[in-house]
Amino acid sequence: MRVVITGGAGFIGKKLAQRLLERGELGGERIDELVLFDIVPAELPADKRLVVATGDIADPAKVRALIGRETRSVFHLAAIVSAQAEAEFDTGMRINLDGTRAVLEACRAAGNVPKLVFASSIAVYGGEMPDEITDATALTPQTSYGIQKAIGELLVSDYSRKGFIDGRALRLPTIVVRPGRPNRAASTFASSIIREPLSGVATVCPVRPESWMPLMSPRRVIEALVKAHDLPAEAFGPYRGLLLPGLNVTVGEMAEAVRRAGGEEAYRRIEWKLDPVIQKIVDGWPRKLRAEKAPRLGIVGDTSMDELVAAFIEDDLPAQKAMVARGR
Amino acid sequence: MRVVITGGAGFIGKKLAQRLLERGELGGERIDELVLFDIVPAELPADKRLVVATGDIADPAKVRALIGRETRSVFHLAAIVSAQAEAEFDTGMRINLDGTRAVLEACRAAGNVPKLVFASSIAVYGGEMPDEITDATALTPQTSYGIQKAIGELLVSDYSRKGFIDGRALRLPTIVVRPGRPNRAASTFASSIIREPLSGVATVCPVRPESWMPLMSPRRVIEALVKAHDLPAEAFGPYRGLLLPGLNVTVGEMAEAVRRAGGEEAYRRIEWKLDPVIQKIVDGWPRKLRAEKAPRLGIVGDTSMDELVAAFIEDDLPAQKAMVARGR
Repeated sequence: MRVVITGGAGFIGKKLAQRLLERGELGGERIDELVLFDIVPAELPADKRLVVATGDIADPAKVRALIGRETRSVFHLAAIVSAQAEAEFDTGMRINLDGTRAVLEACRAAGNVPKLVFASSIAVYGGEMPDEITDATALTPQTSYGIQKAIGELLVSDYSRKGFIDGRALRLPTIVVRPGRPNRAASTFASSIIREPLSGVATVCPVRPESWMPLMSPRRVIEALVKAHDLPAEAFGPYRGLLLPGLNVTVGEMAEAVRRAGGEEAYRRIEWKLDPVIQKIVDGWPRKLRAEKAPRLGIVGDTSMDELVAAFIEDDLPAQKAMVARGR
Repeated sequence: MRVVITGGAGFIGKKLAQRLLERGELGGERIDELVLFDIVPAELPADKRLVVATGDIADPAKVRALIGRETRSVFHLAAIVSAQAEAEFDTGMRINLDGTRAVLEACRAAGNVPKLVFASSIAVYGGEMPDEITDATALTPQTSYGIQKAIGELLVSDYSRKGFIDGRALRLPTIVVRPGRPNRAASTFASSIIREPLSGVATVCPVRPESWMPLMSPRRVIEALVKAHDLPAEAFGPYRGLLLPGLNVTVGEMAEAVRRAGGEEAYRRIEWKLDPVIQKIVDGWPRKLRAEKAPRLGIVGDTSMDELVAAFIEDDLPAQKAMVARGR
C-alpha cells in the first residue's frame, strides 16, 4: 500500500515515518511506498520504500498528483504553526484551510475512500472554557490557527459522512518534549525546561510554576496517530473529532520531574523569570483535559511526568546532547 | 448609512428589509441606502432607499463591488438550503462556504470594520446531543449545510477577533410559520400544518405528534437580527456565535394551537400520515433549545404557540388567503 504524510519534514512527520517503516504495515497491510510531502525535503535515513516530495499543500493540482488513485492512507499534518498563522492571517488561511481542502478534495477525487488522519489541536478550545475540557466541550478557538483546525475537523467529519474519505481528526495536546532547538511558539518553554537542563544547557521558564499544561509525549502521539488510523470508522461515532488524553500537570511538576531525572544540577539550570505576555497566553489555554472517547478506543496518554521524561531520555536525549556538543 | 442584505430575495431577507425601511434607522443611524442582493431580483414595494442587486455570492469581485467602502452593516443571509446542500455537495460548499468567505473578505477589504450579522442555524447541532441544547453544546453537524454554517460562525468569530469586521452569528431555530408554498425542506411540514389549515387548505403531517420542534416566528427572528446588530461587540464575549431562543413544542401542541385558532374545521384539515424518512430526519434534530446568552442580551423568543400562530394570522394570513384564492 501507498501512504502519504503531509508535513513530512516536521518533527512529528519524521517520527511517524520512522515508526511506520519499523512497523512495515498499517491496518494489516504491507507499506510498499511511504511519501513524505512538505515544503522542504524531509531528511530521513534512506529506505527503499521512502519517497521525499516537495511542494505547496495549497496547490490543488500538486496535491491531487501527490495523492493519486493508489494512496490508501494519508496523515495530514502539514500546517503553519500558531504564531505564524496569527501574524500572517492570509498565509494561515491558505495553508491551514485551503491546504486541508486541497487534501480532502484530492482524497475524494482518488475515488477509493482513503483513510485520512488529520492532526487537529487543543488550540480549538479557548475563551469561556470549563476547568476540564472533555470531548463534549464546544470549540470556541481564540486564535486563527485554532479556527483553521476546528474547520479542518468539521470538513474531515463531513467528507467522511458523505463517504468521500474515511477520516478521523485528533486533537493533540501540547507535545512535550520536542527535540532540537527552541522555536517561536509561545509553548516552546514547555519542552525547553525539560530538554535543555537534561542536555546541560541553561533555560528560562517564563511562566509561574502553578500554571497548568496538558501534555503528550511524541511517543504517545505517534501511537495515537497509528491507532486512530487502524480503528474502524464506527469507533468514532457520528463526529470524527477526538480529544487525545493529556497528562494534566503544572509547570512546577514538570520542573520537579527534571530534578528527579537529572538531579539538583539539572534543576538549577531552570531560571524562573516571569514573562507576562507568555503567562497571559498560557492562561488562555485549556488547563486540564479529560478525554472520554480516546481511552475507550484504546488510545492512551502518558501516565506520569517521569514516564514522559524517561521517553525523551530514551528516544531523543542522545541526539540532543550530540547537537549541543557540536555547538548550537 | 448603507446596509446590505445578502439573500435579500428570500423570505427572511424581504421581511428584514421591510422592517428596516419602516424603522428608518439602524444602531441610531439613518438608513440612506438598503441593498438587497440575491441571485434573483428581490420583489418589494418601491422605496427610494431600496436598491435591488443580483449576482453570485461566491464571486469575490462581485461581492467586493457590492459591499465597497461605504457599507456600514451587512446581514449575510444568502445560502443554499439544507436539502440542496446535501444533494449538491459542491454547490453547497461554493455558496455556503466560499460565498461566506467572499463576504468576509469584502468586509475586511472595505477597511471600516463593518458590522456583519450572519444567519447560522441549529443545523450546526447533530449526532450525539444532550436532550437540551445550550450555548455550550459542541457543534457536531450531521449535514453539509450544518457543517458550512458552523464554519461560517467560526470565520465570523475570527474575523471579528482580528478586527476585520464586527460580527455576530445567530443560530436560527426552525422558522414557523413561513408564508407561501411548501418547499422541499424536510421541515416544511412544520409551517404547512399551521399555514394550510388556517387558509382553508388540506395538509399532511408526516411525523408523530410527540416529535419535538424548537420554533421561532419570523417576527421574532427579524427582531433578533436587528437587536443582535445593535448590541455592542462586548455583549457577545470571546465567541460570536449565539443560540437563539426556541419555543420548544411538540408537533401535537402545534396542531392543538391550530385547533384553538381555527376551530375543529381547521384542525381536521391536518391528515396524520407517517413518513418514516421524514420522521428519521426530524428525530436527528435538536429536540429542545435552552438559550442562555440571548435572553441575557434582551433577545427574546416566542412565548407560546398561540402567540406564534397569532403573529402569522396578523402578518401573513391575509396574503396567504389571497394567494390561495388566486388558485395555486
